[in-house]
Amino acid sequence: MASKIELKSLVKPRSLKTFTPGETVQLQGMVFNTRVTKWGGFILLRKPEGVVQIVIQNDKTVITDEKGEAITLNALSRESAIAVDGVVNASNIKDPASANNQIEIAADAIRVISAPSTTDLIDQNSIQFDPDTSLAFKLDHRQVTLRNPRDMAIFRVNAVIVKAFAEFLTANGFTQIFSPKIVAEGAEGGANVFSMDYFGKNVYLAQSPQFYKQIGVGVFERVFEIAPAYRAERHNTSRHLNEYISLDVEMGFIKGQEDVMLLESCLLEHIIRTVESECAHELAFLKAELPKMPHTIPVFRLSETHEILMQHYADKMSMDHRGEPDLAPEEEVLICDYALKEFDSDFVFITHFPSSHRAFYAMDDPDDPTLTISYDLLMRGREITSGGQRIHKEEQYIEKMLKRGMHPENFKFYLETFRNGMPPHGGFAIGLERILSGFLGIPNIKEVSLFPRDINRVAP
Amino acid sequence: MASKIELKSLVKPRSLKTFTPGETVQLQGMVFNTRVTKWGGFILLRKPEGVVQIVIQNDKTVITDEKGEAITLNALSRESAIAVDGVVNASNIKDPASANNQIEIAADAIRVISAPSTTDLIDQNSIQFDPDTSLAFKLDHRQVTLRNPRDMAIFRVNAVIVKAFAEFLTANGFTQIFSPKIVAEGAEGGANVFSMDYFGKNVYLAQSPQFYKQIGVGVFERVFEIAPAYRAERHNTSRHLNEYISLDVEMGFIKGQEDVMLLESCLLEHIIRTVESECAHELAFLKAELPKMPHTIPVFRLSETHEILMQHYADKMSMDHRGEPDLAPEEEVLICDYALKEFDSDFVFITHFPSSHRAFYAMDDPDDPTLTISYDLLMRGREITSGGQRIHKEEQYIEKMLKRGMHPENFKFYLETFRNGMPPHGGFAIGLERILSGFLGIPNIKEVSLFPRDINRVAP
Repeated sequence: MASKIELKSLVKPRSLKTFTPGETVQLQGMVFNTRVTKWGGFILLRKPEGVVQIVIQNDKTVITDEKGEAITLNALSRESAIAVDGVVNASNIKDPASANNQIEIAADAIRVISAPSTTDLIDQNSIQFDPDTSLAFKLDHRQVTLRNPRDMAIFRVNAVIVKAFAEFLTANGFTQIFSPKIVAEGAEGGANVFSMDYFGKNVYLAQSPQFYKQIGVGVFERVFEIAPAYRAERHNTSRHLNEYISLDVEMGFIKGQEDVMLLESCLLEHIIRTVESECAHELAFLKAELPKMPHTIPVFRLSETHEILMQHYADKMSMDHRGEPDLAPEEEVLICDYALKEFDSDFVFITHFPSSHRAFYAMDDPDDPTLTISYDLLMRGREITSGGQRIHKEEQYIEKMLKRGMHPENFKFYLETFRNGMPPHGGFAIGLERILSGFLGIPNIKEVSLFPRDINRVAP
Repeated sequence: MASKIELKSLVKPRSLKTFTPGETVQLQGMVFNTRVTKWGGFILLRKPEGVVQIVIQNDKTVITDEKGEAITLNALSRESAIAVDGVVNASNIKDPASANNQIEIAADAIRVISAPSTTDLIDQNSIQFDPDTSLAFKLDHRQVTLRNPRDMAIFRVNAVIVKAFAEFLTANGFTQIFSPKIVAEGAEGGANVFSMDYFGKNVYLAQSPQFYKQIGVGVFERVFEIAPAYRAERHNTSRHLNEYISLDVEMGFIKGQEDVMLLESCLLEHIIRTVESECAHELAFLKAELPKMPHTIPVFRLSETHEILMQHYADKMSMDHRGEPDLAPEEEVLICDYALKEFDSDFVFITHFPSSHRAFYAMDDPDDPTLTISYDLLMRGREITSGGQRIHKEEQYIEKMLKRGMHPENFKFYLETFRNGMPPHGGFAIGLERILSGFLGIPNIKEVSLFPRDINRVAP
């Protein structure tokens, strides 16, 4: 055999946080910035956890280019991939992007592994440092502009949220499923659906895994999914994405939607605690304060919410919203303000939306069938999730579909699920970008999507 | 406030494996089957972990229907959602679908929470029990036929593979990313791409996250993604899916593709060990034996592979494959047989595929530019993954694109990534359904996709 792979030789990357003064180290990374002084200078080396300061002494440090020839620090391009040999020294770094502000590295040798062909984009300092650079420019060159500590911090928090979501649900008996995104019917109805040709058939991109997660409950009792979802909305606002990541949960054998709301609250608390403990550096850098989740989260009915706001915030509202079938954006902001002041909570549940304004699968309230057993969860002035109890009887689905002018024969496989027995169940979907945006206090959702898709943007 | 959610009251579901004789228990589940005897009978209750036997005694157990009226066991429909009150008794259950074969539950009370409207589908025993039921029928009614121990075991293993994949990579410094599936260009080229209208633009469904994971390396050094991928292939075989889950990995600062191959080997070993320890019940039920991963995995060049097979298996091959640019399916089977016999390995790496037969981003071998630094990993007779080192210099991309008649101006954002500096890097993609199928010895990939998509099937 020409060669072989020996399993035991995998070396885990070491965290910069474990580096201690006096150690001889070798590390590799990208040159984020350089500063030349009379006696040598500094390299800010970019690592996944943040930057680390490398000290260059002209009389000691040898810098070589890709061909092995000696060069000066001045000739070292930003965004070069380099290898560093050196010794860890104690330090006191003020840069908030620093991965470990207790250390720096005195370099013996710097070797360029790969240099960029130009640095035209990078040399516009604005791309990496200036928060005033236009969002359009940053998004147009996302493939490079992501290489800055702020964006890196955002997407490290993103990854930790997803990890915490999956680990909490797995520990609570949920099975992760993967449902198709090419579907024959849209689950949410309406015109906001992308269609395409699939070998001569007209098909859709899934607006949500709703049907499939309900089917999953019939099989596994409790399921979750982490996957893209598609909405062909023509809005181009700071709140809309046409492709987003939906964190979906569905559970069986519930007594009512309170079981679902409790699960979601405990899940969010676990996510917040995990981000708090694993992303202290990122939160500090982003000056982000995580939302407050008290042990008691307030719950208001929609009708009650309109009343509370008229009572306490009439002067701050453009109009009287009582009797409306949904919350107005200004009401979302104000009821969150109320929940924070009265209950010290950045979260508030709103329940009992009118049946006419919720999806057909929402269970109607037996006490008042014009309402549904459904909820929205608001965080810091915005809806981050919709949930509730679902219908679990075929005859109730058919009755509701017919009442709405829908055609049960278009939902054959879905209805077969209920015809063959289903437990009472409910669930919710969290928009990943929405909670990330809320956690970090970044209002424009496009900034917290790695490569956002909107009505004008399909690249990069 | 009308109500509130108290965080501390969440109860984790208890595993049936922790049930001990003498305990009084309450549990809920679906009636998978019933058996009536003279003195009472049995219910096989379906839980996510498997089934549990409930013992009914006519003179002791009270069974009530949805309205609270007493019924006989005979009147209890399969696929009813029920609540059981009873006492755990020691037992010795032979059913391999049993979640805990040391116990059964003597029921005091059975309460029907929700009964199916009909059981026409379920009463065809074939759906749930008979392995000879046609795959087409099973897939047509997947929403119900998944409710059997075999399919449940398959998809529990699926979830554990995904969990192990993410946990190993996270522990090794990889950041999980989410890249768009609506893209302006296909990464893999060719005609096998689904296109659609996106607000008046023609766009594609991503064949792979290749461009985005490479961009991710420039930012985070090491990234992974778990997401659907799309191939508009017209083949309708047991090896093809038009939508599948791709487990993608990309890492920077590699010395060569051996670093990538080592990472993938260690990752697969971790996945195998995790499945072994967490899915013992499922593996036993499916009579599956996990693949053997020795500490030394053999690696052969493509040209060497052709030679070895001519030397050892000439009589088993339909023709002489030497000089061909890829492995023939019969060669995939035979080289795996060779690796198992000679190296006790169910895995074998094949390297150095011709440049003409690999994607444009594969790095050409400096020792022989007609070849690439790329590999396939075969397991048990099938390719489960492709990987290798990628080009990291813009000028090499442009040169290779022009040589192939590709238009660099169509890849503007991708090329900008390399122009602005990239470390040497490489990665691989594992087809989730392919490793699941190989682990479990289930040859038809459609059986291991929850809701498979092929040229004829977009529902359920």
